[in-house]
Amino acid sequence: MKFLHTSDWHLGRQFHNVSLLDDQALILQQLVDYVRHHPVDAVIVAGDIYDRSVPPTQAIQLLNQVVSDLCQSLNTPVIMIPGNHDGAARLGFAAEQMRASGLYIISDFSQMLEPVVLSSEQAGEVAFYGMPYNDPELVRHHFNVTVSTHDEAHQVLCEKIVEQFDKSQCHVLISHCFVDGAIESESERPLSIGGSDRVSHEHFLPFDYVALGHLHKPQYKGEAFIRYSGSLMKYSFSEQHQKKSMTLVELDKTGFVCTTQIELHAAHEMRIIEGNLADILDQAADDPRPEDYLLIRLTDKHAILDPMEKLRQVYPNVLHIEKPGMLIGIDQEMSTQRLKRNEIDMFKDFFQEAKQEPLTREQEQAIATVIADLKKGEE
Amino acid sequence: MKFLHTSDWHLGRQFHNVSLLDDQALILQQLVDYVRHHPVDAVIVAGDIYDRSVPPTQAIQLLNQVVSDLCQSLNTPVIMIPGNHDGAARLGFAAEQMRASGLYIISDFSQMLEPVVLSSEQAGEVAFYGMPYNDPELVRHHFNVTVSTHDEAHQVLCEKIVEQFDKSQCHVLISHCFVDGAIESESERPLSIGGSDRVSHEHFLPFDYVALGHLHKPQYKGEAFIRYSGSLMKYSFSEQHQKKSMTLVELDKTGFVCTTQIELHAAHEMRIIEGNLADILDQAADDPRPEDYLLIRLTDKHAILDPMEKLRQVYPNVLHIEKPGMLIGIDQEMSTQRLKRNEIDMFKDFFQEAKQEPLTREQEQAIATVIADLKKGEE
Repeated sequence: MKFLHTSDWHLGRQFHNVSLLDDQALILQQLVDYVRHHPVDAVIVAGDIYDRSVPPTQAIQLLNQVVSDLCQSLNTPVIMIPGNHDGAARLGFAAEQMRASGLYIISDFSQMLEPVVLSSEQAGEVAFYGMPYNDPELVRHHFNVTVSTHDEAHQVLCEKIVEQFDKSQCHVLISHCFVDGAIESESERPLSIGGSDRVSHEHFLPFDYVALGHLHKPQYKGEAFIRYSGSLMKYSFSEQHQKKSMTLVELDKTGFVCTTQIELHAAHEMRIIEGNLADILDQAADDPRPEDYLLIRLTDKHAILDPMEKLRQVYPNVLHIEKPGMLIGIDQEMSTQRLKRNEIDMFKDFFQEAKQEPLTREQEQAIATVIADLKKGEE
Repeated sequence: MKFLHTSDWHLGRQFHNVSLLDDQALILQQLVDYVRHHPVDAVIVAGDIYDRSVPPTQAIQLLNQVVSDLCQSLNTPVIMIPGNHDGAARLGFAAEQMRASGLYIISDFSQMLEPVVLSSEQAGEVAFYGMPYNDPELVRHHFNVTVSTHDEAHQVLCEKIVEQFDKSQCHVLISHCFVDGAIESESERPLSIGGSDRVSHEHFLPFDYVALGHLHKPQYKGEAFIRYSGSLMKYSFSEQHQKKSMTLVELDKTGFVCTTQIELHAAHEMRIIEGNLADILDQAADDPRPEDYLLIRLTDKHAILDPMEKLRQVYPNVLHIEKPGMLIGIDQEMSTQRLKRNEIDMFKDFFQEAKQEPLTREQEQAIATVIADLKKGEE
């Protein structure tokens, strides 16, 4: 039994006011192409399919295309659960009517207890249990149990599922949660404000493989078979050094699991470039990926006229500029005297940029008078 | 071949800030119960399934329940098209994956040209063509034709469908439009602002039956087989005398059509009660339906203190009060002098209501002075 484990597609996400939908479509095309050339028994999406509970129409159309390609054209079952970003009831509309076509959206607790059973020669029957993302309150209310934390809720849900186990089958769990001790990225939204959102990996030990979603960095925790596939693509600059991938899982009758990371390539990577403006502009010509989504961290200590315009001439997708150098300057020398001098300095820089020549002494005197007058007006 | 034609469910509609979802659920239960006791070959919903393109979650859950009852429990195919209130792409997500279970959501032009073919002993094969609601601009763009009105768009779409006809089959069209000459109600949203939204019934003549949606009053136009089922329930007080129903259509091999209205009963009717407050309160005890949603039109000529509170003690679901009697009084006598006298009159009414006794002459004098002072302050 071979299946692909993916998660955290976040279709429809905006990043610094840029829609990532075209990027997401290109990466999902890699997934579809992979399945076309390397058939698998199922594709799993472990939650956060959409970026929000009411996704934009274009995100719905993209998902529609992907499930049509997989379920219809490639005859490959797709199993998904809602994550904390998805609206479970909205995503789960007509889920019952989709199952006959191999699209399994497991969005409520009754569906959770009825596994999707697929079979293959190597692994025999494999039961896929999907645990839709849920707040502890929902678990408490639905099962009438006293749970108040995510960890307690997961314990109850895992026990309920394990009770259903058919010993002749292998068991895969799909869940969207934060396993204690795993590594978070900047682009996840906390599952709980105030309370703890961590769950112990020990609840998952009875399963043969656990396909996790929520954390955006590919990783396993506790056991090698308790695994995050990581997100479809980078969703923050802090993920610049992460490699994004989907996890190919191979499972045999004995419960032996082999996983392989299949790398996914974004049309635009998210990167941070640090340096002074002149150096960055100089070196841009040799940059093999000038179209990437960039955060530029300028180390220049003096004011610069419209750095975004200059940078975008070589890097069209600069999304954000940070000027830590200038911030330090201001923080350290926050006296009226220094500020006054700084304003003249800044004007000098501006003049140099705009006219390509320095201020004369007379001009400097004049501008100092103007600034002093303005200050007086302010007081 | 027997099928039920319904339309304009408008799930999730609010009426005077009251959610109609519970009322809608009760009426849809009548539909499901009817099918349980009188099996049909299909249920049609001719658009405006939801009241808006992004419906509330509870409306989605209700629709989910109804299609599960019909498609799964009762094994009855459901065929629906989006109307002008629905979001076609949103409603049509995974439509391809639902077809195997007998849920057919026809939401784009390619699906329009591939009929849902059902068969029965009496009628042989019947092809159901669904025409998703569309603006003329969309038709122009998609088919690269020069159309600018709804009528021209319908002509093009009907011709495209008729080209697909298999002569051995009967042909049913499902469309959401305004047939010229048909009767509108107050609760429909115009299809076109400024331009004409009317279409000729003549485009529909090649079909054996045309299941229309959009107009909320049950009616036929042009031919008896070109028919509006009307909305699920009343959505404005102006529909108080309409009977709401679904249309049972029976079709035989020769194209002979027999239609029957199956009445639908709302838990709360929408009614207008007209009269003076005292009479209305008096007669309420004999009203067999005090829970109805009511518009009360008060004919009293004098001011009344908090009529809503008094009315709701006998009619808990009064949603709106109109006071045409008082408006006429003000309109007709709009002179400063009259208004001044009116203010005192209104205070007299108020005092009578609040204290259950009339103003004394001294009190009247005092209040006249206060009003005069206030007037002076205003000027």
